[in-house]
Amino acid sequence: MNILPDWLSHYRRSALAGDLTAGIIVTVMLIPQSLAYALLAGLPPEMGLYASILPIVAYALFGSSMTLAVGPVAVASLMTASALQPLAAAGSAHYISLAITLSLLSGGMLLLFGLLRLGFLAHFLSHPVISGFISGSAVLIAVGQLKHLLGVSASGHSALDTLLSLARHLPDVNTVTLAIGASSLLFLWAARKYLARLLLALGLSAKLADVLGKLAPMLAVVVSTAVVAWWRLDSTAGVSVVGAVPQGLPALALPSLQGVGVLLLPALLISLVGFVESVSVAQSLALKRQQRINPNRELLGLGAANIASAFSGGFPVTGGFARSVVNFAAGANTPLAGVVSAVLMGAVIAAMTGLFHYLPHAVLAATIIIAVTSLIDLETLREAWHYDKADAVSLLATAAGVIAFGVEAGIVLGVALSLGTLVWRSSHPHIAVVGRVPGTEHFRNVERHAVDTEPGLIALRVDEGLYFANASLLQDRIEALVAAQPETRQVLLVCSAVNLVDTTALGVLTELERSLHARGIAFALSEVKGPVMDRLQATPLGQRLQGRIFLSTHEAFSQAQQRTDG
Amino acid sequence: MNILPDWLSHYRRSALAGDLTAGIIVTVMLIPQSLAYALLAGLPPEMGLYASILPIVAYALFGSSMTLAVGPVAVASLMTASALQPLAAAGSAHYISLAITLSLLSGGMLLLFGLLRLGFLAHFLSHPVISGFISGSAVLIAVGQLKHLLGVSASGHSALDTLLSLARHLPDVNTVTLAIGASSLLFLWAARKYLARLLLALGLSAKLADVLGKLAPMLAVVVSTAVVAWWRLDSTAGVSVVGAVPQGLPALALPSLQGVGVLLLPALLISLVGFVESVSVAQSLALKRQQRINPNRELLGLGAANIASAFSGGFPVTGGFARSVVNFAAGANTPLAGVVSAVLMGAVIAAMTGLFHYLPHAVLAATIIIAVTSLIDLETLREAWHYDKADAVSLLATAAGVIAFGVEAGIVLGVALSLGTLVWRSSHPHIAVVGRVPGTEHFRNVERHAVDTEPGLIALRVDEGLYFANASLLQDRIEALVAAQPETRQVLLVCSAVNLVDTTALGVLTELERSLHARGIAFALSEVKGPVMDRLQATPLGQRLQGRIFLSTHEAFSQAQQRTDG
Repeated sequence: MNILPDWLSHYRRSALAGDLTAGIIVTVMLIPQSLAYALLAGLPPEMGLYASILPIVAYALFGSSMTLAVGPVAVASLMTASALQPLAAAGSAHYISLAITLSLLSGGMLLLFGLLRLGFLAHFLSHPVISGFISGSAVLIAVGQLKHLLGVSASGHSALDTLLSLARHLPDVNTVTLAIGASSLLFLWAARKYLARLLLALGLSAKLADVLGKLAPMLAVVVSTAVVAWWRLDSTAGVSVVGAVPQGLPALALPSLQGVGVLLLPALLISLVGFVESVSVAQSLALKRQQRINPNRELLGLGAANIASAFSGGFPVTGGFARSVVNFAAGANTPLAGVVSAVLMGAVIAAMTGLFHYLPHAVLAATIIIAVTSLIDLETLREAWHYDKADAVSLLATAAGVIAFGVEAGIVLGVALSLGTLVWRSSHPHIAVVGRVPGTEHFRNVERHAVDTEPGLIALRVDEGLYFANASLLQDRIEALVAAQPETRQVLLVCSAVNLVDTTALGVLTELERSLHARGIAFALSEVKGPVMDRLQATPLGQRLQGRIFLSTHEAFSQAQQRTDG
Repeated sequence: MNILPDWLSHYRRSALAGDLTAGIIVTVMLIPQSLAYALLAGLPPEMGLYASILPIVAYALFGSSMTLAVGPVAVASLMTASALQPLAAAGSAHYISLAITLSLLSGGMLLLFGLLRLGFLAHFLSHPVISGFISGSAVLIAVGQLKHLLGVSASGHSALDTLLSLARHLPDVNTVTLAIGASSLLFLWAARKYLARLLLALGLSAKLADVLGKLAPMLAVVVSTAVVAWWRLDSTAGVSVVGAVPQGLPALALPSLQGVGVLLLPALLISLVGFVESVSVAQSLALKRQQRINPNRELLGLGAANIASAFSGGFPVTGGFARSVVNFAAGANTPLAGVVSAVLMGAVIAAMTGLFHYLPHAVLAATIIIAVTSLIDLETLREAWHYDKADAVSLLATAAGVIAFGVEAGIVLGVALSLGTLVWRSSHPHIAVVGRVPGTEHFRNVERHAVDTEPGLIALRVDEGLYFANASLLQDRIEALVAAQPETRQVLLVCSAVNLVDTTALGVLTELERSLHARGIAFALSEVKGPVMDRLQATPLGQRLQGRIFLSTHEAFSQAQQRTDG
């Protein structure tokens, strides 16, 4: 058995140049992001760096995507903060220990889901719910960062709360901090909007221009750090800076299992959301190169990454959208690009953490705000609004839930709404009276198509499995149709769309058949699917219906016609 | 406008004899039951009598069933006790006031549901869940009554708890109480099993024998009361008796609204369960006489009954199974039978409550136990087990949940399980590759039928609406089929059973079409339903699929054949 991953044992030398370039570029992007997301998670900056070394290597060994860039990301960091803030003071030793435990739990769950091949669980998060969740989280994150931009302290349980608290603290604004924050924000915004275009105009290739455009945050970090350090703005003007970051590689340590109970639900939600986010990025990148992603392998890869994060003093990580796209565009061919990043990050933390001392928090906040605004996804909302209002409502409710009540309540609300919509729809099925499309053996809705019907025969198609929540509705509809057409001698239920008849519906159909029979009306079925038929045959209703279950609606109509003619 | 109910304004004199007889017989049955169910609910006996007067009249004015007998019933009484016991000491003034509030809330909800025409809500309780719930409640009730039979005090949060507590109190058993209780139990059991048969043998009509057989509890009450009173067993042997019951009609009073908040959920559950139980009895009796029940009118009737109960010092009521069957069998033609009962109950409470002084609790307990054992429904379990294991599991889980965790947790568990099963099933749809049934325009599963396929064409039918939880599964299945048949030029999705394509599934199909197209494989649809087609047409996928959406699978096959031949 080959214990090396496939990409490594078959590594082609031709892939090396791309992997090296991508690894270097991603590192330059990763340094400010890892510091910023640690800040967002309420953790000391070095934990962001720790979470960007071993987890990448672990994913490279176990994951299935060639180009996914794993590490701290905005939404998982927000979810970490939201899970831990009720339990301990942000930044305290207990808080740090809980973050590490959360990463361990989340990794363990992902690994377990991968081993049990439960990758499909992610499908229970619908696309609109995920989109609403991420957009809502982005708003929550951006609002939460404003205090760093203004240099004030403010807090709140919801976005509105935080804004009100900010408004109250407006008189305390640190103008120097605000100047640094606002100019960074403006620079990053302009860089995102114009830098790539400018570089293109200067004669760079489109790809290179695009990749270099993503390095603007590093430039902002370097310049602002230099400015603060030169004028010692931290002591002279009270600008909040990162301060001393411990130097040296993270020590490997057994994570504590304290607080496991209360962290189970947050860990589950972080795992699921992180997995879904990560797989969708990995899948869309893989499709561009005709590669395949294995969801169960992804679970193992992300699980290993989070466990590695926990053992090396990090916090929950997953595949990030922006970094993966840059990794892909910069020419990454294999996970070696990630390993290159990890080695470079290791070098940074081993020798260069002193460089971050004067890095102002306001710049990190600006980086976060610019990064998350690109996560706000109005396109899916627009599409859903035009295509399916119920999905649009789920999306908006999830986003509103996140903004008003926090990430956990928001996602639970979203899932409940999307499942509720599903059940609601199936409890109100579309029921159509059908007739024959002239000259064919095909049957369609009498209200939508010019079709022929048979006197004395009501043929109706119910477009849903029959179960407890809709069986009585079908019964009422049939009774109403029969009452309106007293000449009815046969009721034919076209079962082409009936995928299920549960015990309750079986009872209702049995009663319906008896009641129609008592009035001299025959009840018949057509196009009953194999799995439904298998179960129906053994029941009393199945016995009574013998000879009245037709393979096709055509057969049923032909027989009814013969009876009328004869 | 006629303010009288229909049955009253068109009352036929010929209905009177049946209504009078039924009214008298139901009263004889109602007296011990109303006392017993008040005991079960943890309330003083007179409240059972109060709940059997005005509620019946209110239902007669607003309900739609001709034969439903409304009043205190076992399951609603158990639910009342279970809702109130955590809030106040059973029998205390606060407890009584909460019971009245609960009845008011439950009535208000039923009325509101009726006005909003929400009768269909009851359909979300599947038949197996209701059956499991009632069986579980019956066990819980029977176990809870054992202490009265033994003359000991015992209590517990679950059936097992109660049994353990009983075991600990076994040394304190009151032998006289046990003798009275056990002999009543034996008598009632024998009466149910043999009395009707005996009366039949004595020459009575089957119907009369059956009805008289139901009066055994009254006989047990009369005899045991006489025995206890004669020997003053209450003071000489410590037999627990009903004691002084206040005489006089209930005073009308405004119910208190204290504790409304905590009672909302229990009131909702009592309303729903009571409504479902009541409607199913009313419906099965109505069917026997070709009458119809209007679920929304039933909501109004039961709502009015509960509000009347609250205003006259009673507790939650609903339509009872056993009493309604007796009412029907004894010849009730209209709700006038109920009004007769109400007048007789009024007479009893106005003048005869002294007769209940020496009625032993043990006899009431025996009455309850015999009544509820007939509610245990193994038949539905057997049927579900043979027809649909998932439904059988829901039934058993609901029953076990009620017995282990109480009524509220049990029914919530049951509903969650039945909805979960539904979602789970639809997330794993049946997907069949189909071919043409030779000589027809009909297409069936290639694995179940001898059918013809077309080279280069994969036609598959998915037996479920496409939505977030199953769309990727379909995609994986198609990819696997295409990978196994490299000569594929067209993939046809037969949508006869696709009742829904949500936003997530639309995205998956769009991506699938693009990806197949890139490999030179055409993606096509057939038998798309009207409602699905309407929405699909306006999307980019709809545009791309133009000319590849076939009305019938036959058309799609014919075109593929022409292409191959040409």
